[in-house]
Amino acid sequence: MAYTLVLLRHGNSDWNQKNLFTGWVDVRLSDQGVGEAKRAGELLAESGVLPDVLHTSVLTRAIQTANLALDEADRAWIPVRRSWRLNERHYGALQGLDKAETLEKYGPEQFQLWRRSFDVPPPVLADDAEYSQVGDPRYADLADGELPRTECLKDVIDRMIPYWTSDIVPDLESGKTVLVTAHGNSLRALVKHLDGISDDDIAELNIPTGIPLVYRLGDDFLPLGPAEYLDPEAAAAGAAAVAAQGKK
Amino acid sequence: MAYTLVLLRHGNSDWNQKNLFTGWVDVRLSDQGVGEAKRAGELLAESGVLPDVLHTSVLTRAIQTANLALDEADRAWIPVRRSWRLNERHYGALQGLDKAETLEKYGPEQFQLWRRSFDVPPPVLADDAEYSQVGDPRYADLADGELPRTECLKDVIDRMIPYWTSDIVPDLESGKTVLVTAHGNSLRALVKHLDGISDDDIAELNIPTGIPLVYRLGDDFLPLGPAEYLDPEAAAAGAAAVAAQGKK
Repeated sequence: MAYTLVLLRHGNSDWNQKNLFTGWVDVRLSDQGVGEAKRAGELLAESGVLPDVLHTSVLTRAIQTANLALDEADRAWIPVRRSWRLNERHYGALQGLDKAETLEKYGPEQFQLWRRSFDVPPPVLADDAEYSQVGDPRYADLADGELPRTECLKDVIDRMIPYWTSDIVPDLESGKTVLVTAHGNSLRALVKHLDGISDDDIAELNIPTGIPLVYRLGDDFLPLGPAEYLDPEAAAAGAAAVAAQGKK
Repeated sequence: MAYTLVLLRHGNSDWNQKNLFTGWVDVRLSDQGVGEAKRAGELLAESGVLPDVLHTSVLTRAIQTANLALDEADRAWIPVRRSWRLNERHYGALQGLDKAETLEKYGPEQFQLWRRSFDVPPPVLADDAEYSQVGDPRYADLADGELPRTECLKDVIDRMIPYWTSDIVPDLESGKTVLVTAHGNSLRALVKHLDGISDDDIAELNIPTGIPLVYRLGDDFLPLGPAEYLDPEAAAAGAAAVAAQGKK
Protein backbone atom coordinates (compact mmCIF):
# COMPACT_ATOMS: atom_id res chain seq x y z
CA MET A 1 0.00 0.00 0.00
CA ALA A 2 1.31 3.46 -0.93
CA TYR A 3 0.07 6.47 0.95
CA THR A 4 -0.26 9.96 -0.56
CA LEU A 5 0.80 13.09 1.31
CA VAL A 6 0.60 16.58 -0.18
CA LEU A 7 2.48 19.50 1.37
CA LEU A 8 1.53 23.07 0.51
CA ARG A 9 3.29 26.17 1.77
CA HIS A 10 1.02 29.23 2.01
CA GLY A 11 1.43 31.93 -0.60
CA ASN A 12 2.81 35.45 -0.33
CA SER A 13 1.48 37.38 2.71
CA ASP A 14 1.14 41.07 3.49
CA TRP A 15 4.30 40.86 5.59
CA ASN A 16 6.24 38.91 2.97
CA GLN A 17 5.54 41.86 0.72
CA LYS A 18 6.72 44.31 3.37
CA ASN A 19 9.81 42.08 3.99
CA LEU A 20 9.09 41.73 7.74
CA PHE A 21 9.81 38.72 9.96
CA THR A 22 6.40 37.18 10.60
CA GLY A 23 6.56 33.97 12.63
CA TRP A 24 3.40 33.62 14.71
CA VAL A 25 2.03 37.08 13.85
CA ASP A 26 -1.32 36.41 12.19
CA VAL A 27 -1.02 38.33 8.92
CA ARG A 28 -3.17 37.72 5.84
CA LEU A 29 -2.37 36.63 2.30
CA SER A 30 -1.50 39.40 -0.16
CA ASP A 31 -3.37 39.54 -3.47
CA GLN A 32 -0.41 37.65 -4.94
CA GLY A 33 -0.80 34.99 -2.24
CA VAL A 34 -4.51 34.64 -3.02
CA GLY A 35 -3.58 34.00 -6.66
CA GLU A 36 -0.95 31.43 -5.63
CA ALA A 37 -3.48 29.57 -3.48
CA LYS A 38 -6.01 29.37 -6.32
CA ARG A 39 -3.29 28.17 -8.67
CA ALA A 40 -2.39 25.44 -6.17
CA GLY A 41 -6.01 24.31 -6.26
CA GLU A 42 -5.94 24.20 -10.07
CA LEU A 43 -2.78 22.07 -9.92
CA LEU A 44 -4.49 19.63 -7.54
CA ALA A 45 -7.55 19.41 -9.79
CA GLU A 46 -5.52 19.02 -13.00
CA SER A 47 -3.26 16.34 -11.54
CA GLY A 48 -6.10 14.39 -9.96
CA VAL A 49 -4.33 14.40 -6.58
CA LEU A 50 -7.48 15.10 -4.58
CA PRO A 51 -7.13 15.49 -0.81
CA ASP A 52 -9.51 13.56 1.45
CA VAL A 53 -8.55 15.41 4.63
CA LEU A 54 -6.84 18.69 5.44
CA HIS A 55 -4.43 19.55 8.24
CA THR A 56 -3.58 23.25 8.74
CA SER A 57 -1.86 25.45 11.28
CA VAL A 58 -4.01 27.93 13.24
CA LEU A 59 -2.55 30.87 11.31
CA THR A 60 -4.92 32.66 8.94
CA ARG A 61 -2.56 32.73 5.96
CA ALA A 62 -2.32 28.91 5.89
CA ILE A 63 -6.07 28.53 6.43
CA GLN A 64 -6.84 31.03 3.64
CA THR A 65 -4.49 29.12 1.35
CA ALA A 66 -6.21 25.82 2.11
CA ASN A 67 -9.71 27.26 1.76
CA LEU A 68 -8.94 28.88 -1.60
CA ALA A 69 -7.08 25.88 -3.01
CA LEU A 70 -9.70 23.34 -1.92
CA ASP A 71 -12.53 25.54 -3.16
CA GLU A 72 -10.79 25.70 -6.55
CA ALA A 73 -10.35 21.90 -6.58
CA ASP A 74 -14.02 21.38 -5.59
CA ARG A 75 -12.95 19.78 -2.28
CA ALA A 76 -14.12 22.47 0.15
CA TRP A 77 -16.14 19.77 1.91
CA ILE A 78 -13.32 17.54 3.18
CA PRO A 79 -12.74 17.24 6.95
CA VAL A 80 -10.37 19.80 8.48
CA ARG A 81 -8.05 19.56 11.46
CA ARG A 82 -6.02 22.49 12.75
CA SER A 83 -3.11 22.53 15.15
CA TRP A 84 -0.71 25.14 16.51
CA ARG A 85 1.93 22.41 16.07
CA LEU A 86 1.86 23.14 12.31
CA ASN A 87 2.47 26.88 12.88
CA GLU A 88 5.41 28.72 11.40
CA ARG A 89 8.57 28.91 13.51
CA HIS A 90 8.16 31.50 16.27
CA TYR A 91 10.64 34.19 15.33
CA GLY A 92 11.07 35.56 18.88
CA ALA A 93 12.07 39.21 19.20
CA LEU A 94 12.56 39.43 15.42
CA GLN A 95 8.78 39.27 14.83
CA GLY A 96 7.73 42.53 13.19
CA LEU A 97 11.27 43.65 12.28
CA ASP A 98 12.29 44.56 8.75
CA LYS A 99 14.47 41.82 7.24
CA ALA A 100 16.73 44.13 5.22
CA GLU A 101 17.25 46.49 8.19
CA THR A 102 18.00 43.52 10.45
CA LEU A 103 20.54 42.22 7.94
CA GLU A 104 22.19 45.63 7.79
CA LYS A 105 22.20 46.14 11.55
CA TYR A 106 23.49 42.72 12.63
CA GLY A 107 25.45 41.67 9.55
CA PRO A 108 25.07 38.65 7.28
CA GLU A 109 26.54 36.09 9.69
CA GLN A 110 24.14 36.80 12.59
CA PHE A 111 21.26 37.24 10.14
CA GLN A 112 21.85 33.87 8.51
CA LEU A 113 22.29 32.25 11.94
CA TRP A 114 18.85 33.47 13.04
CA ARG A 115 17.26 32.45 9.75
CA ARG A 116 18.86 29.09 9.25
CA SER A 117 20.61 27.84 12.39
CA PHE A 118 19.33 24.43 13.40
CA ASP A 119 19.55 24.96 17.14
CA VAL A 120 20.16 28.65 17.91
CA PRO A 121 16.85 30.55 18.38
CA PRO A 122 16.51 34.35 18.03
CA PRO A 123 16.19 36.39 21.25
CA VAL A 124 13.03 35.74 23.27
CA LEU A 125 9.95 37.89 22.53
CA ALA A 126 8.72 39.70 25.67
CA ASP A 127 5.19 38.79 26.79
CA ASP A 128 4.15 42.46 26.67
CA ALA A 129 5.66 43.08 23.22
CA GLU A 130 3.37 44.27 20.42
CA TYR A 131 3.62 40.98 18.51
CA SER A 132 3.49 38.55 21.45
CA GLN A 133 0.91 35.72 21.28
CA VAL A 134 0.35 35.67 25.03
CA GLY A 135 -3.40 36.05 25.58
CA ASP A 136 -4.36 35.07 22.02
CA PRO A 137 -7.53 32.95 22.46
CA ARG A 138 -6.44 30.43 19.84
CA TYR A 139 -3.68 29.27 22.20
CA ALA A 140 -5.85 29.22 25.33
CA ASP A 141 -5.81 25.41 25.48
CA LEU A 142 -2.01 25.03 25.37
CA ALA A 143 -0.41 23.52 28.46
CA ASP A 144 1.90 25.62 30.63
CA GLY A 145 5.22 26.07 28.88
CA GLU A 146 3.91 25.03 25.44
CA LEU A 147 3.46 28.56 24.05
CA PRO A 148 6.83 29.51 22.56
CA ARG A 149 8.51 32.92 22.92
CA THR A 150 11.11 32.02 20.29
CA GLU A 151 12.06 28.92 18.34
CA CYS A 152 14.88 27.45 16.30
CA LEU A 153 14.16 24.76 13.69
CA LYS A 154 14.97 22.05 16.26
CA ASP A 155 12.19 23.43 18.49
CA VAL A 156 9.77 23.29 15.56
CA ILE A 157 10.68 19.65 14.96
CA ASP A 158 10.18 18.87 18.65
CA ARG A 159 6.61 20.21 18.66
CA MET A 160 5.68 19.25 15.08
CA ILE A 161 6.72 15.61 14.77
CA PRO A 162 4.51 14.44 17.69
CA TYR A 163 1.52 15.79 15.72
CA TRP A 164 2.71 14.02 12.57
CA THR A 165 2.72 10.76 14.49
CA SER A 166 -0.47 11.24 16.51
CA ASP A 167 -2.74 12.92 13.95
CA ILE A 168 -1.44 12.87 10.38
CA VAL A 169 -0.11 9.30 10.15
CA PRO A 170 -3.44 7.80 11.34
CA ASP A 171 -5.25 9.66 8.53
CA LEU A 172 -2.72 8.32 6.01
CA GLU A 173 -3.07 4.86 7.52
CA SER A 174 -6.82 4.91 6.89
CA GLY A 175 -6.05 5.35 3.17
CA LYS A 176 -6.82 9.04 2.92
CA THR A 177 -4.87 11.45 0.72
CA VAL A 178 -3.70 14.02 3.26
CA LEU A 179 -3.10 17.71 2.49
CA VAL A 180 -0.93 19.63 4.97
CA THR A 181 -1.13 23.38 4.45
CA ALA A 182 1.47 25.12 6.56
CA HIS A 183 4.61 27.27 6.60
CA GLY A 184 8.20 27.41 5.40
CA ASN A 185 9.69 26.11 8.62
CA SER A 186 7.02 23.68 9.81
CA LEU A 187 7.17 22.06 6.36
CA ARG A 188 10.99 22.06 6.41
CA ALA A 189 10.75 20.23 9.74
CA LEU A 190 8.50 17.61 8.20
CA VAL A 191 10.58 17.25 5.01
CA LYS A 192 13.72 16.84 7.15
CA HIS A 193 12.04 13.95 8.93
CA LEU A 194 10.66 12.35 5.76
CA ASP A 195 13.78 12.67 3.62
CA GLY A 196 16.24 12.05 6.46
CA ILE A 197 18.08 15.33 5.88
CA SER A 198 20.93 16.08 8.29
CA ASP A 199 20.91 18.99 10.77
CA ASP A 200 23.51 20.75 8.61
CA ASP A 201 22.00 20.15 5.19
CA ILE A 202 18.49 21.32 6.13
CA ALA A 203 19.78 24.93 6.13
CA GLU A 204 20.01 24.73 2.33
CA LEU A 205 16.47 23.45 1.79
CA ASN A 206 13.99 26.06 0.56
CA ILE A 207 10.35 25.20 -0.06
CA PRO A 208 8.58 27.39 -2.64
CA THR A 209 5.17 28.91 -1.85
CA GLY A 210 1.91 27.78 -3.39
CA ILE A 211 3.06 24.65 -5.23
CA PRO A 212 1.78 21.28 -3.99
CA LEU A 213 4.59 18.81 -3.17
CA VAL A 214 3.45 15.19 -3.45
CA TYR A 215 4.97 12.31 -1.48
CA ARG A 216 4.20 8.63 -1.94
CA LEU A 217 4.90 6.89 1.35
CA GLY A 218 5.41 3.24 2.18
CA ASP A 219 4.20 1.19 5.14
CA ASP A 220 6.75 2.90 7.38
CA PHE A 221 5.30 6.30 6.34
CA LEU A 222 8.61 7.24 4.76
CA PRO A 223 9.01 8.14 1.05
CA LEU A 224 9.08 5.42 -1.60
CA GLY A 225 10.96 7.85 -3.88
CA PRO A 226 11.66 11.56 -4.31
CA ALA A 227 8.71 13.88 -3.72
CA GLU A 228 7.41 15.72 -6.77
CA TYR A 229 6.17 19.26 -7.18
CA LEU A 230 3.01 19.49 -9.30
CA ASP A 231 4.65 22.36 -11.23
CA PRO A 232 8.41 21.59 -11.17
CA GLU A 233 9.51 24.64 -13.17
CA ALA A 234 7.63 27.11 -10.99
CA ALA A 235 8.91 25.25 -7.90
CA ALA A 236 12.57 25.67 -8.91
CA ALA A 237 12.07 29.39 -9.52
CA GLY A 238 10.17 29.74 -6.23
CA ALA A 239 12.84 27.99 -4.18
CA ALA A 240 15.49 30.31 -5.61
CA ALA A 241 13.35 33.31 -4.67
CA VAL A 242 13.02 32.07 -1.07
CA ALA A 243 16.78 31.54 -0.84
CA ALA A 244 17.33 35.15 -1.91
CA GLN A 245 14.90 36.50 0.72
CA GLY A 246 16.13 39.27 3.01
CA LYS A 247 18.72 40.36 0.47
CA LYS A 248 18.23 43.85 -0.85
CA MET B 1 -24.45 28.56 33.09
CA ALA B 2 -25.81 29.94 29.80
CA TYR B 3 -24.60 28.46 26.53
CA THR B 4 -24.38 30.43 23.27
CA LEU B 5 -25.46 28.97 19.94
CA VAL B 6 -25.36 30.90 16.67
CA LEU B 7 -27.26 29.71 13.60
CA LEU B 8 -26.39 31.03 10.16
CA ARG B 9 -28.19 30.18 6.95
CA HIS B 10 -25.99 30.37 3.84
CA GLY B 11 -26.48 33.31 1.53
CA ASN B 12 -27.93 33.46 -1.97
CA SER B 13 -26.60 30.74 -4.30
CA ASP B 14 -26.32 30.44 -8.07
CA TRP B 15 -29.43 28.28 -8.08
CA ASN B 16 -31.39 30.58 -5.77
CA GLN B 17 -30.79 33.22 -8.41
CA LYS B 18 -31.95 30.87 -11.16
CA ASN B 19 -34.98 29.92 -9.00
CA LEU B 20 -34.20 26.18 -9.14
CA PHE B 21 -34.82 23.55 -6.45
CA THR B 22 -31.36 22.77 -5.06
CA GLY B 23 -31.44 20.34 -2.12
CA TRP B 24 -28.22 18.30 -2.11
CA VAL B 25 -26.93 19.62 -5.46
CA ASP B 26 -23.61 21.27 -4.62
CA VAL B 27 -23.98 24.75 -6.09
CA ARG B 28 -21.89 27.77 -5.13
CA LEU B 29 -22.75 31.11 -3.58
CA SER B 30 -23.69 33.90 -5.99
CA ASP B 31 -21.88 37.25 -5.72
CA GLN B 32 -24.84 38.38 -3.62
CA GLY B 33 -24.34 35.36 -1.34
CA VAL B 34 -20.65 36.17 -0.94
CA GLY B 35 -21.63 39.66 0.18
CA GLU B 36 -24.20 38.26 2.65
CA ALA B 37 -21.60 35.94 4.16
CA LYS B 38 -19.12 38.77 4.69
CA ARG B 39 -21.87 40.91 6.22
CA ALA B 40 -22.65 38.03 8.62
CA GLY B 41 -19.00 38.07 9.69
CA GLU B 42 -19.16 41.81 10.30
CA LEU B 43 -22.27 41.33 12.45
CA LEU B 44 -20.47 38.69 14.53
CA ALA B 45 -17.44 40.95 14.98
CA GLU B 46 -19.52 44.04 15.82
CA SER B 47 -21.71 42.21 18.32
CA GLY B 48 -18.79 40.45 20.00
CA VAL B 49 -20.50 37.06 19.58
CA LEU B 50 -17.34 35.22 18.57
CA PRO B 51 -17.62 31.53 17.70
CA ASP B 52 -15.16 29.08 19.29
CA VAL B 53 -16.08 26.15 17.05
CA LEU B 54 -17.86 25.74 13.71
CA HIS B 55 -20.24 23.03 12.54
CA THR B 56 -21.16 22.99 8.82
CA SER B 57 -22.87 20.74 6.36
CA VAL B 58 -20.75 19.17 3.60
CA LEU B 59 -22.29 21.43 0.95
CA THR B 60 -20.00 24.07 -0.55
CA ARG B 61 -22.42 26.99 -0.19
CA ALA B 62 -22.59 26.54 3.60
CA ILE B 63 -18.82 26.04 3.84
CA GLN B 64 -18.13 29.14 1.71
CA THR B 65 -20.50 31.12 3.96
CA ALA B 66 -18.70 29.96 7.10
CA ASN B 67 -15.22 30.57 5.65
CA LEU B 68 -16.09 34.09 4.50
CA ALA B 69 -17.92 35.05 7.69
CA LEU B 70 -15.22 33.71 10.02
CA ASP B 71 -12.46 35.29 7.96
CA GLU B 72 -14.26 38.64 8.26
CA ALA B 73 -14.63 38.16 12.05
CA ASP B 74 -10.95 37.18 12.36
CA ARG B 75 -11.92 33.67 13.54
CA ALA B 76 -10.75 31.61 10.54
CA TRP B 77 -8.64 29.57 12.97
CA ILE B 78 -11.42 27.97 15.05
CA PRO B 79 -11.91 24.19 14.86
CA VAL B 80 -14.30 22.95 12.17
CA ARG B 81 -16.57 19.93 12.07
CA ARG B 82 -18.61 18.98 9.03
CA SER B 83 -21.49 16.55 8.69
CA TRP B 84 -23.92 15.50 5.98
CA ARG B 85 -26.51 15.52 8.80
CA LEU B 86 -26.52 19.34 8.56
CA ASN B 87 -27.20 19.26 4.80
CA GLU B 88 -30.20 20.92 3.20
CA ARG B 89 -33.33 18.78 2.80
CA HIS B 90 -32.91 16.39 -0.15
CA TYR B 91 -35.46 17.63 -2.66
CA GLY B 92 -35.84 14.28 -4.46
CA ALA B 93 -36.90 14.42 -8.11
CA LEU B 94 -37.47 18.18 -7.81
CA GLN B 95 -33.70 18.81 -7.63
CA GLY B 96 -32.75 20.89 -10.67
CA LEU B 97 -36.32 21.88 -11.60
CA ASP B 98 -37.42 25.49 -12.01
CA LYS B 99 -39.59 26.57 -9.07
CA ALA B 100 -41.91 28.83 -11.06
CA GLU B 101 -42.43 26.18 -13.78
CA THR B 102 -43.08 23.55 -11.13
CA LEU B 103 -45.64 25.82 -9.46
CA GLU B 104 -47.36 26.37 -12.80
CA LYS B 105 -47.30 22.71 -13.80
CA TYR B 106 -48.50 21.17 -10.53
CA GLY B 107 -50.51 24.03 -9.04
CA PRO B 108 -50.11 25.93 -5.78
CA GLU B 109 -51.48 23.18 -3.53
CA GLN B 110 -49.06 20.45 -4.64
CA PHE B 111 -46.22 22.96 -4.80
CA GLN B 112 -46.78 24.15 -1.25
CA LEU B 113 -47.14 20.53 -0.07
CA TRP B 114 -43.70 19.65 -1.48
CA ARG B 115 -42.15 22.79 -0.08
CA ARG B 116 -43.69 22.84 3.36
CA SER B 117 -45.36 19.53 4.20
CA PHE B 118 -43.99 18.11 7.43
CA ASP B 119 -44.15 14.47 6.41
CA VAL B 120 -44.81 14.17 2.66
CA PRO B 121 -41.55 14.01 0.66
CA PRO B 122 -41.28 14.87 -3.05
CA PRO B 123 -40.93 11.94 -5.51
CA VAL B 124 -37.72 9.89 -5.19
CA LEU B 125 -34.70 10.98 -7.27
CA ALA B 126 -33.44 8.14 -9.50
CA ASP B 127 -29.89 6.98 -8.81
CA ASP B 128 -28.91 7.61 -12.44
CA ALA B 129 -30.48 11.07 -12.58
CA GLU B 130 -28.26 14.06 -13.41
CA TYR B 131 -28.51 15.51 -9.92
CA SER B 132 -28.26 12.28 -7.90
CA GLN B 133 -25.67 12.13 -5.10
CA VAL B 134 -25.02 8.41 -5.57
CA GLY B 135 -21.26 7.99 -6.06
CA ASP B 136 -20.36 11.41 -4.64
CA PRO B 137 -17.15 10.75 -2.63
CA ARG B 138 -18.23 13.01 0.24
CA TYR B 139 -20.92 10.46 1.10
CA ALA B 140 -18.71 7.39 0.72
CA ASP B 141 -18.66 6.74 4.49
CA LEU B 142 -22.45 6.72 4.92
CA ALA B 143 -23.97 3.44 6.05
CA ASP B 144 -26.28 1.52 3.73
CA GLY B 145 -29.64 3.25 3.54
CA GLU B 146 -28.39 6.53 5.00
CA LEU B 147 -28.01 8.38 1.68
CA PRO B 148 -31.44 9.92 0.99
CA ARG B 149 -33.16 9.99 -2.41
CA THR B 150 -35.79 12.42 -1.13
CA GLU B 151 -36.72 13.92 2.21
CA CYS B 152 -39.55 15.71 3.98
CA LEU B 153 -38.83 17.94 6.97
CA LYS B 154 -39.55 15.04 9.33
CA ASP B 155 -36.75 13.06 7.64
CA VAL B 156 -34.37 15.99 8.11
CA ILE B 157 -35.22 16.10 11.82
CA ASP B 158 -34.64 12.34 12.11
CA ARG B 159 -31.09 12.58 10.73
CA MET B 160 -30.21 16.01 12.12
CA ILE B 161 -31.19 15.83 15.80
CA PRO B 162 -28.90 12.82 16.54
CA TYR B 163 -25.97 15.02 15.39
CA TRP B 164 -27.19 17.89 17.57
CA THR B 165 -27.10 15.55 20.56
CA SER B 166 -23.89 13.69 19.77
CA ASP B 167 -21.70 16.49 18.40
CA ILE B 168 -23.06 20.00 18.94
CA VAL B 169 -24.33 19.72 22.52
CA PRO B 170 -20.94 18.43 23.81
CA ASP B 171 -19.21 21.49 22.30
CA LEU B 172 -21.76 23.77 24.00
CA GLU B 173 -21.35 21.84 27.23
CA SER B 174 -17.60 22.54 27.19
CA GLY B 175 -18.43 26.27 27.27
CA LYS B 176 -17.74 27.00 23.62
CA THR B 177 -19.77 29.45 21.55
CA VAL B 178 -20.94 27.23 18.68
CA LEU B 179 -21.64 28.46 15.14
CA VAL B 180 -23.80 26.21 12.95
CA THR B 181 -23.67 27.23 9.30
CA ALA B 182 -26.28 25.31 7.35
CA HIS B 183 -29.45 25.50 5.27
CA GLY B 184 -33.06 26.64 5.34
CA ASN B 185 -34.48 23.25 6.24
CA SER B 186 -31.75 21.79 8.45
CA LEU B 187 -31.92 25.01 10.51
CA ARG B 188 -35.75 24.88 10.55
CA ALA B 189 -35.40 21.34 11.94
CA LEU B 190 -33.13 22.58 14.71
CA VAL B 191 -35.26 25.65 15.51
CA LYS B 192 -38.35 23.41 15.66
CA HIS B 193 -36.58 21.30 18.29
CA LEU B 194 -35.23 24.27 20.26
CA ASP B 195 -38.39 26.37 20.27
CA GLY B 196 -40.80 23.44 20.57
CA ILE B 197 -42.69 24.39 17.41
CA SER B 198 -45.53 22.05 16.39
CA ASP B 199 -45.52 19.97 13.20
CA ASP B 200 -48.20 22.30 11.78
CA ASP B 201 -46.71 25.64 12.79
CA ILE B 202 -43.22 24.91 11.47
CA ALA B 203 -44.57 25.37 7.91
CA GLU B 204 -44.87 29.09 8.60
CA LEU B 205 -41.30 29.54 9.88
CA ASN B 206 -38.91 31.14 7.40
CA ILE B 207 -35.25 31.73 8.28
CA PRO B 208 -33.58 34.60 6.41
CA THR B 209 -30.20 34.08 4.76
CA GLY B 210 -26.94 35.51 6.01
CA ILE B 211 -28.07 36.92 9.38
CA PRO B 212 -26.69 35.25 12.54
CA LEU B 213 -29.44 34.07 14.92
CA VAL B 214 -28.24 33.90 18.53
CA TYR B 215 -29.67 31.55 21.15
CA ARG B 216 -28.84 31.55 24.86
CA LEU B 217 -29.44 28.04 26.15
CA GLY B 218 -29.86 26.73 29.68
CA ASP B 219 -28.57 23.56 31.30
CA ASP B 220 -31.13 21.50 29.36
CA PHE B 221 -29.75 23.00 26.09
CA LEU B 222 -33.12 24.63 25.43
CA PRO B 223 -33.58 28.41 25.03
CA LEU B 224 -33.64 30.70 28.07
CA GLY B 225 -35.57 33.24 25.98
CA PRO B 226 -36.38 34.12 22.37
CA ALA B 227 -33.46 33.90 19.94
CA GLU B 228 -32.26 37.19 18.50
CA TYR B 229 -31.08 38.07 15.01
CA LEU B 230 -27.98 40.27 15.02
CA ASP B 231 -29.71 42.53 12.47
CA PRO B 232 -33.46 42.28 13.29
CA GLU B 233 -34.65 44.64 10.56
CA ALA B 234 -32.79 42.84 7.80
CA ALA B 235 -33.97 39.51 9.24
CA ALA B 236 -37.65 40.49 9.02
CA ALA B 237 -37.23 41.61 5.40
CA GLY B 238 -35.28 38.44 4.59
CA ALA B 239 -37.88 36.11 6.10
CA ALA B 240 -40.62 37.78 4.03
CA ALA B 241 -38.52 37.30 0.90
CA VAL B 242 -38.09 33.58 1.63
CA ALA B 243 -41.84 33.19 2.20
CA ALA B 244 -42.48 34.73 -1.22
CA GLN B 245 -40.05 32.34 -2.97
CA GLY B 246 -41.29 30.43 -5.96
CA LYS B 247 -43.95 33.03 -6.66
CA LYS B 248 -43.59 34.86 -9.94
